[in-house]
Amino acid sequence: MIEDGASAPGSGLLKDYQDPGTPPGTLSSADGESGPARVVLTSYSAADIEVREIDDPEALDGLRGSGRVHWIHVIGLADVSVVEHLGKAFDLHPLALEDVLTLGQRPKVEEFDDTVFCIVQHLAYGREGLEKTQVSLFLGTNFVITFQPRGTDLFEPVRERLVKGRAKLRQKGAGYLAYAILDLIVDAAFPALEALGDHLDAIEEGILEKPDQEDIENLQGVRRELLVLRQVLWPQREVMGRLSREEHELMADDLRVYFRDCYDHAVQALEVSENFREMASGLLDIYLTSLSHRLNDVMKVLTIISTVFMPLSFLAGVYGMNFDRAQPLNMPELGWRYGYLGFWGVTLAGIATMLWLFRRKGWL
Amino acid sequence: MIEDGASAPGSGLLKDYQDPGTPPGTLSSADGESGPARVVLTSYSAADIEVREIDDPEALDGLRGSGRVHWIHVIGLADVSVVEHLGKAFDLHPLALEDVLTLGQRPKVEEFDDTVFCIVQHLAYGREGLEKTQVSLFLGTNFVITFQPRGTDLFEPVRERLVKGRAKLRQKGAGYLAYAILDLIVDAAFPALEALGDHLDAIEEGILEKPDQEDIENLQGVRRELLVLRQVLWPQREVMGRLSREEHELMADDLRVYFRDCYDHAVQALEVSENFREMASGLLDIYLTSLSHRLNDVMKVLTIISTVFMPLSFLAGVYGMNFDRAQPLNMPELGWRYGYLGFWGVTLAGIATMLWLFRRKGWL
Amino acid sequence: MIEDGASAPGSGLLKDYQDPGTPPGTLSSADGESGPARVVLTSYSAADIEVREIDDPEALDGLRGSGRVHWIHVIGLADVSVVEHLGKAFDLHPLALEDVLTLGQRPKVEEFDDTVFCIVQHLAYGREGLEKTQVSLFLGTNFVITFQPRGTDLFEPVRERLVKGRAKLRQKGAGYLAYAILDLIVDAAFPALEALGDHLDAIEEGILEKPDQEDIENLQGVRRELLVLRQVLWPQREVMGRLSREEHELMADDLRVYFRDCYDHAVQALEVSENFREMASGLLDIYLTSLSHRLNDVMKVLTIISTVFMPLSFLAGVYGMNFDRAQPLNMPELGWRYGYLGFWGVTLAGIATMLWLFRRKGWL
Amino acid sequence: MIEDGASAPGSGLLKDYQDPGTPPGTLSSADGESGPARVVLTSYSAADIEVREIDDPEALDGLRGSGRVHWIHVIGLADVSVVEHLGKAFDLHPLALEDVLTLGQRPKVEEFDDTVFCIVQHLAYGREGLEKTQVSLFLGTNFVITFQPRGTDLFEPVRERLVKGRAKLRQKGAGYLAYAILDLIVDAAFPALEALGDHLDAIEEGILEKPDQEDIENLQGVRRELLVLRQVLWPQREVMGRLSREEHELMADDLRVYFRDCYDHAVQALEVSENFREMASGLLDIYLTSLSHRLNDVMKVLTIISTVFMPLSFLAGVYGMNFDRAQPLNMPELGWRYGYLGFWGVTLAGIATMLWLFRRKGWL
Amino acid sequence: MIEDGASAPGSGLLKDYQDPGTPPGTLSSADGESGPARVVLTSYSAADIEVREIDDPEALDGLRGSGRVHWIHVIGLADVSVVEHLGKAFDLHPLALEDVLTLGQRPKVEEFDDTVFCIVQHLAYGREGLEKTQVSLFLGTNFVITFQPRGTDLFEPVRERLVKGRAKLRQKGAGYLAYAILDLIVDAAFPALEALGDHLDAIEEGILEKPDQEDIENLQGVRRELLVLRQVLWPQREVMGRLSREEHELMADDLRVYFRDCYDHAVQALEVSENFREMASGLLDIYLTSLSHRLNDVMKVLTIISTVFMPLSFLAGVYGMNFDRAQPLNMPELGWRYGYLGFWGVTLAGIATMLWLFRRKGWL
Repeated sequence: MIEDGASAPGSGLLKDYQDPGTPPGTLSSADGESGPARVVLTSYSAADIEVREIDDPEALDGLRGSGRVHWIHVIGLADVSVVEHLGKAFDLHPLALEDVLTLGQRPKVEEFDDTVFCIVQHLAYGREGLEKTQVSLFLGTNFVITFQPRGTDLFEPVRERLVKGRAKLRQKGAGYLAYAILDLIVDAAFPALEALGDHLDAIEEGILEKPDQEDIENLQGVRRELLVLRQVLWPQREVMGRLSREEHELMADDLRVYFRDCYDHAVQALEVSENFREMASGLLDIYLTSLSHRLNDVMKVLTIISTVFMPLSFLAGVYGMNFDRAQPLNMPELGWRYGYLGFWGVTLAGIATMLWLFRRKGWL
Repeated sequence: MIEDGASAPGSGLLKDYQDPGTPPGTLSSADGESGPARVVLTSYSAADIEVREIDDPEALDGLRGSGRVHWIHVIGLADVSVVEHLGKAFDLHPLALEDVLTLGQRPKVEEFDDTVFCIVQHLAYGREGLEKTQVSLFLGTNFVITFQPRGTDLFEPVRERLVKGRAKLRQKGAGYLAYAILDLIVDAAFPALEALGDHLDAIEEGILEKPDQEDIENLQGVRRELLVLRQVLWPQREVMGRLSREEHELMADDLRVYFRDCYDHAVQALEVSENFREMASGLLDIYLTSLSHRLNDVMKVLTIISTVFMPLSFLAGVYGMNFDRAQPLNMPELGWRYGYLGFWGVTLAGIATMLWLFRRKGWL
Repeated sequence: MIEDGASAPGSGLLKDYQDPGTPPGTLSSADGESGPARVVLTSYSAADIEVREIDDPEALDGLRGSGRVHWIHVIGLADVSVVEHLGKAFDLHPLALEDVLTLGQRPKVEEFDDTVFCIVQHLAYGREGLEKTQVSLFLGTNFVITFQPRGTDLFEPVRERLVKGRAKLRQKGAGYLAYAILDLIVDAAFPALEALGDHLDAIEEGILEKPDQEDIENLQGVRRELLVLRQVLWPQREVMGRLSREEHELMADDLRVYFRDCYDHAVQALEVSENFREMASGLLDIYLTSLSHRLNDVMKVLTIISTVFMPLSFLAGVYGMNFDRAQPLNMPELGWRYGYLGFWGVTLAGIATMLWLFRRKGWL
Repeated sequence: MIEDGASAPGSGLLKDYQDPGTPPGTLSSADGESGPARVVLTSYSAADIEVREIDDPEALDGLRGSGRVHWIHVIGLADVSVVEHLGKAFDLHPLALEDVLTLGQRPKVEEFDDTVFCIVQHLAYGREGLEKTQVSLFLGTNFVITFQPRGTDLFEPVRERLVKGRAKLRQKGAGYLAYAILDLIVDAAFPALEALGDHLDAIEEGILEKPDQEDIENLQGVRRELLVLRQVLWPQREVMGRLSREEHELMADDLRVYFRDCYDHAVQALEVSENFREMASGLLDIYLTSLSHRLNDVMKVLTIISTVFMPLSFLAGVYGMNFDRAQPLNMPELGWRYGYLGFWGVTLAGIATMLWLFRRKGWL
Repeated sequence: MIEDGASAPGSGLLKDYQDPGTPPGTLSSADGESGPARVVLTSYSAADIEVREIDDPEALDGLRGSGRVHWIHVIGLADVSVVEHLGKAFDLHPLALEDVLTLGQRPKVEEFDDTVFCIVQHLAYGREGLEKTQVSLFLGTNFVITFQPRGTDLFEPVRERLVKGRAKLRQKGAGYLAYAILDLIVDAAFPALEALGDHLDAIEEGILEKPDQEDIENLQGVRRELLVLRQVLWPQREVMGRLSREEHELMADDLRVYFRDCYDHAVQALEVSENFREMASGLLDIYLTSLSHRLNDVMKVLTIISTVFMPLSFLAGVYGMNFDRAQPLNMPELGWRYGYLGFWGVTLAGIATMLWLFRRKGWL
């Protein structure tokens, strides 16, 4: 199985999968890179807010009925029991829980009777290139549950806005919170795209200055990352599109304009990545013409040298022949007073003529 | 963040974006290139018209209820307070205002209860290549509000037509004014396309005469501009298509045929740009075959020279050997009376034969 | 502005356009190539028919109410007043009239209350390559008005059929007349396609015999014409498709099967042009492989010559060395009785071996 | 006009066409290759069957009302009167009859009030490559009329099944007979595809062994045939798809599952041909890399020879110089006892070193 | 006819087919590779389960009415009578039975009155590359019948889950069993894709290290396998999509979420295979640039050698000339005291200069 976020070739394209024939809904912990679960509960109403870390999952049991909005954020998926417990406490569908634990999923949205479930991929451009982190989100009447397999808390900015009491976010309920989280994920694609664009620009500069095989390998790396991007951004766009048209009772009517904005951003990210793909193949074209140019240049040098020196060497060879000068017609030039100077005269005139010809042909 | 209208590679493809996690509807001034706001108010009825510059935004407050059509055109987005004030005075949606201030947006149309909002991109081909200017437009019952981030007033021609009292424009209300503005923007693509086409033709001429690496870089530049064009023209076509089918109460039925005309123009601009893309890749093909031809030519020169002089040099070498002529069988040619002349005869005959052969093969 | 039918690169792709900001419905005469108007009126019923040239447009005023079918064909668009007069007399929409006068339009169909308006492009393959002529057609209850910017009357065959009294055409009313005209235009694409196909075949033959740069320029020319073709044929297909589904009262039910036939022809023309596009890129492939082959051939000649003569020249050089033969070990071969003959023996054996090797490698 | 089934380039892509302006429904005999009409009438009920050749078309007049199923198969379209007579006797639409006589049509299905008309193309792979034969079929309440322009009777297998009294075919009426005929035509694509696939495999083998220009011409031929195939198979798929959804009263409900099966086969044939197209462009890639490899090999030979012999020739040249050995510093090597042997020692060591270097570089 | 699972070129793309004209529903045994039938009956209720091999097909006759779920799995299709018998006993449509026996079918789903029939392809990556095995499945009220042409039992894992009494599978009826079987087949694509991906990575490594013709043949092989994959995975996705929307009474409502999960997996497998296709053409690009690089390198060596030694050989040739030194102006250098040393000085300086120039040009 290929690990989420790893940089080996082909990685990021294939999702994790269970052995064919495994019963559906079987929960097995996500791959080893995933750390132990850290559970952060944020409960709020317009009036007050409480943030605390939960160590014992059973503390979450009574939350469902209360009048406040509860946001449970789970970081680390190594511990299946936390996921199972949440599944029971909030009545989540086992297939959805299986998806939470299987990394590398295609972004999607799934409606159940009283929850909306969606999977998206958070993109970032780190030291090892493009990294995607699978985020799963359950939206219920007064709760949002999010899962992130590892790393630092992605949603700290949202929690800060909640704590700072910015009115809209605290008053608008669980649906708006889900929007705020998904909006953050969609917008995270832009800095990643910008980094990729810078990378492309650097490769272009390298190719124009001096194309070497390394450039082409870097370019191939970028193209692979763009494939991963597309694999994420196409369905992410669909997810946002569907949420913006969603008629589920959990989605208040006035939320739609927000999700439509989110959808517009997702479309734009996708378009940029598609254009990067075109630019990448344009770079390959430049690279190939550049190689062709260099070959032409090399061949011109060779041809100029050969064209100048082959006839001259022939001439020198002629006057190195040993025809018997006793015969008057044999090589009389060798006995001329200015023979040698004449030879050099012809030689230099020949070189000058050749160079003039080559210059006229534009080869110099 | 990449600046609108800048010419660095990759620019124009990525929109401005706020840091992920920024609350929606947060208004921050557009990038620094955007000048301070200049507000031009044009109020008219069929009978009379008044044009004046507004310094104090509060002068705009009472306009909404009156019986005339008001067109407020804002040039320069550096001053957020003007946008905020207009937002409050005309009850504009905060997400739309955020879009107004974020440059590089994808053209789109958004319906609200009592306004229609659309973003389009005005294209021009200036000294630094293709330039796009984002124009945002709000259409309300008796008002149109337009925003342009900087530069000279794009809509002077429309205002002139209003002032000159051309009947239809003055009588038909705010919807028709919006049409006139959008029509101008859609049609602005044609001179830009014409300039791009001229550029392509110039590159083609250069390639056919003498292909060099600079041509390929120019071509790559054009292809990038065509990517930007497509990114603008595709959604612009959608915007016009949707407006021509729009059933919003603000859109009078007889406006639709005008927007349909606008849509036809948008389609045509898009088609031309797509065809330019094909022509650009055709030029790359010409370029590559042209390089291949030159290589062939260079190699032919080399081969001709080598084929002529290598055997001759060998021959001269032979008669430069020092075999002991005391042995009668050793190099008797050297003692012949016409040996040297014979050598030249063979040499010239060889050259003539070679040239005849090459001519027959079509290499000369 | 680019002229209709001109053959400069890029022409035919961009339509004429008015300066952005020009009020819609402004009538300005089509470009200078367009001649003065010649107006031919054909009035008929099943019983009789009358064909005459109209000099004074006012003669057309009373026609609208009468019980016969009137076909007004205008050749030459330099005279705006004729178009304006017709517009008033038959109540034609100003936007449609503007389209009539703007050449290079995309084929389209537009329904108005009591007229159907369509623009199509007549294709022909003349001395200067593909030529397109914009034809505009208005269909009303008992009239058809057609415009053609210049040239000889395209619709003479239809008029002849009318005059010869072929029953169906005279009895079926204005809709069937419009069909007959459009059918002629759609079918005109086939001889043009056939000429283009012949052109492609000629280029292919040239490339297979002896590829030179001219072929590639011809090929590029054909590809550009195919782009123009596609730009015309795609929307032409849509026009016919829409007319075959049209529910306008002007379209009798039994006309639909005729327009469907027309649509089938339009589809077929489009498919042929798309296949020609594929064939054209196939030719480019052949061309490139052909160049590659020639390079290989040239290099083989060079390599054979070098491989044969370089070692031999070395050998001749060796026996041209001046080692002091007083030393017994220095170059004893030079004193051998058969030294020189042996040298030639080695030389000829070497040449024979090389040629045998090259033949075995398949290089000869 | 291009003939059906001919093998000239471009043929098969363009349909026959009548001169533009010819009145619709004009019947003119199909091209000269089409033989005189042979008419075979097969009349059957579940109980009995009669097959006979009809010489006088008038014998067909009374058939329409009788209670049996009549299948009239016309081979040869040179004789327009037969087609005209059938048209009158069975009330067939004139546009459909015109299509029957125009070869090279796009497969299509057309519904009339009491008949369903369809055109399909029978594919076969003969000595001259892919051959298509246009088959037209009219289905009426109790009759099926089929036309085939020339050749041996394509539908002999169906007639045999009828005669052998296979129950279903005899009992199920005219619709099932039409299905049996169309099924035969759709399935005929598979042997043709198999032959094309074998052809592709043979080309691939040739390219891998020794690529020459002929392979590329063969490949181009196959690509052209694949274009023809696609032009036939795409609309054929549509025809079958539409028949399988057809709600015409002539189509019994239980026929649909049979036409759906037919549709599945048509889809599969299309997919195979699309994959062959991809394989054909894959072969072009192999071909180009193969040429590139050969060029590399040729250049390596040249470079090895030059690198070995150029320095050695220089050395031989040095010792062939005539510096005045009276001066003690001039060329003392020439007088050494082992000078000549030393020269050969250096020469052989040089050759050995070079070969070792080239082997290490992998050039040998 | 091409055999299922064989590895000859073109295989796997074309399905088996019967001779055109064969009556529909004719059952002929699948190709010879298919072994004799082995029939495994698994009958279960929530309470108990029974697994046994059936030798005499008549033992299956009474099963249909009983209250338990029956799963009949047939391995080996050489024996038509078993299929025929099952067809009669369970009232299966003859066209479906024909499809069961024709290997290489396109995945599809077909609804009949009281059964749902589907064909899918099980993918595995064995020693001989990609292998596909056609699986046919009939779902009835209380039975599932599956066919597999040969090999070991694919569905052993499902049967084990049944035997181990895992609650859901035993309680949910025939529809859920069908889901479990199809889920296994869809998921089997992932290990096959992983193997293909590893293969691609290995080729990439080979190309980057040292591109040779074998790599390109391997790559071509992978591209062909990807074509086969796509031909299977596209319709497989459609099959799952349709089952997840299926409203057939056999499909309980709560099954749909399971089939939707299955559909998601099918989409993901398809996307991965499409991305592999892009990666494969990326490899071709790397390969071509790599060859170009090598050619450049080879030519540089040749040019360096020639540029260094051609002028030097010329110089040696000059001093090997035999001008008559009796004339004072002829070749005085030959008599200089340091002439020979000077020659070597010039030679070495020339070599040094050249090498310095080449290093500056970056050729070394």
